[in-house]
Amino acid sequence: MKTKSVSIIINSPTFLINGQVCRTNIRRMAEKARINDLIFRPHFKTHQSVEVGEWFRDDGVEAITVASVSMAQQFAAAGWQDITIAFPLNIREIDEINLLAGKIRLNVLFDMPEQAAAMAKRLWKPAGFFVKIDVGYHRAGVLPEDFETIDTILGSAGSDMLQFNGFLTHAGQTYGANSREEILNIHRKTSEILYGLKQKYNRKFPGIITSTGDTPSCSLAEDFTGIDEIRPGNFVFYDLMQCQLGSCSFDEIGAAVICPIVSVYPARNEALIYGGAVHLSKESLTNQDGSKNFGLIVPFINGKWRHPEGDDYLVSLSQEHGIFRTDSQWAKSLRPGELVAVIPVHSCLVADLYRNADCGFRIA
Amino acid sequence: MKTKSVSIIINSPTFLINGQVCRTNIRRMAEKARINDLIFRPHFKTHQSVEVGEWFRDDGVEAITVASVSMAQQFAAAGWQDITIAFPLNIREIDEINLLAGKIRLNVLFDMPEQAAAMAKRLWKPAGFFVKIDVGYHRAGVLPEDFETIDTILGSAGSDMLQFNGFLTHAGQTYGANSREEILNIHRKTSEILYGLKQKYNRKFPGIITSTGDTPSCSLAEDFTGIDEIRPGNFVFYDLMQCQLGSCSFDEIGAAVICPIVSVYPARNEALIYGGAVHLSKESLTNQDGSKNFGLIVPFINGKWRHPEGDDYLVSLSQEHGIFRTDSQWAKSLRPGELVAVIPVHSCLVADLYRNADCGFRIA
Repeated sequence: MKTKSVSIIINSPTFLINGQVCRTNIRRMAEKARINDLIFRPHFKTHQSVEVGEWFRDDGVEAITVASVSMAQQFAAAGWQDITIAFPLNIREIDEINLLAGKIRLNVLFDMPEQAAAMAKRLWKPAGFFVKIDVGYHRAGVLPEDFETIDTILGSAGSDMLQFNGFLTHAGQTYGANSREEILNIHRKTSEILYGLKQKYNRKFPGIITSTGDTPSCSLAEDFTGIDEIRPGNFVFYDLMQCQLGSCSFDEIGAAVICPIVSVYPARNEALIYGGAVHLSKESLTNQDGSKNFGLIVPFINGKWRHPEGDDYLVSLSQEHGIFRTDSQWAKSLRPGELVAVIPVHSCLVADLYRNADCGFRIA
Repeated sequence: MKTKSVSIIINSPTFLINGQVCRTNIRRMAEKARINDLIFRPHFKTHQSVEVGEWFRDDGVEAITVASVSMAQQFAAAGWQDITIAFPLNIREIDEINLLAGKIRLNVLFDMPEQAAAMAKRLWKPAGFFVKIDVGYHRAGVLPEDFETIDTILGSAGSDMLQFNGFLTHAGQTYGANSREEILNIHRKTSEILYGLKQKYNRKFPGIITSTGDTPSCSLAEDFTGIDEIRPGNFVFYDLMQCQLGSCSFDEIGAAVICPIVSVYPARNEALIYGGAVHLSKESLTNQDGSKNFGLIVPFINGKWRHPEGDDYLVSLSQEHGIFRTDSQWAKSLRPGELVAVIPVHSCLVADLYRNADCGFRIA
């Protein structure tokens, strides 16, 4: 991702990040990790930016997480020497993984014996691996009570090149939680499960660790008993979803998309921005009445976005069009040609949309 | 978008188009336009590809539609001389529009007097404009009975440089229709509205035309009375949504995303592909039971995708992960490392995700 510092001339949808807010978010999470004696291995899938990555280095971060082999290649090329690819091994990419393992300290994930067997057979440079555990999100991972599969994976990974590092999970079910309490309960259960596995396998594999990392848990929890490593990613930007979950305050949101007002439709209390699904992604929140919210419209003044004036949220997105309801008096007063900021529902997906753009990803 | 012809080695999510199917889709729509004496101005937002654009030229297309100034710049640079930007004028981009208007025959859209006034004041090269009409989609446009606004727009556009071309709409409500009948009714009503406006304004502005263009109407309708120009885009690829609407058959779908199977979870009848929201977009269809469908998984054999084996659809997408239900015996038999094809819900949004990619957009 190419970034530009701003003296801002914005005429089309532009992803803008507030460097000061992001750096504070990084510092706070790094500090929390230090206090709790945790390895801090932030997930770089959120920003995918070499420049933002440097801000983490400024806070002492040396080990990172990525979501794909191509991201690992990108950050290895930018000088990162210790990378975990937090996605179950795609055995079609073992050649690329071999090349990476020859250059950096690389960790991969297994949740099936076939992945371990394929790597044991074809890896010719040392790499570490984690067994990915499904602690209730039911996306990927081995169920924690399925010792048979865990043992088969460990047995299949028999290679001098492969080192077992421990148990890793992503408790993504926190994103669907309805309260702080529910998030902390998920976090507690996750910690217990991982710690139990570590205790069980520690004798045979001394030095293994436990790794977890969803942003809601890492933001809200103070007790990390049983956890050795955290890998949150989204917290660098946060977003509307995290704000709604209580993971952050509005002032901790570090990214927005700046969009021009194109038309206003007072008769239906709506307005049109140049800014659609290709600029904001189709991720949505569901309002209490069942309607969808694709992002919150807030004022953008002197290069900074401000607090919301009302329930001025995007009700629909098509490819390039965004329609929002003009709830507040401020929103009703907007005219074509003015700029507004959209606080995105899910900053990771939005940042990805600007990853290859020549312009648009700017740092205020 | 850079394209590659295939001898296919696919190890990560890859957008694949079937050139033969796409060319047949183009030929059929071009033929329908010829038979009905319609101007055929296809929407290039769907593919955003210079190479695919050439296929349209092979069928006699010389005038195109795009969704943004930047797309207009892209296709003007590729030699297209007659372009309509089918998005209400973003008055912040008038400088770029001036530059384009100096090079090609350019049309823009107004749905507010302020847009017309800004262009009339600042345009120094000739351009055409349409008044955008809202025929019931309620996204953008002037309501057809709002003659006061139409007249104010026409009055505000007083400049020797600006020529009024007629009335244009996008009846996007066809995408939400529940039957072929409903689509044809929307199409009929749309045609009547536009023709009525043309009749009313024709005396004062001889030569004005009517323009419409949603893919469901253009695919299903045979009667285009009252319409002078069609601008469908999606039909070049079609997709699962269009197939469900009845706009196309499965065999007419021209694009899919090829993804590796990463893990299988027989206990929950699900499997994981490397292919998530950043590869497929979060556009979804709603199943009869209220659950979501983010794309249909079908076999991929010898470089071609095949008919579905069952209800093997994606039930959830996160950034890089796709989880699908393994309904068919074929799906249950899949193993890590095999490739499958995902028939996308909405091909326009998926194609956009590969627009800037160095690899991934391939033509079979």
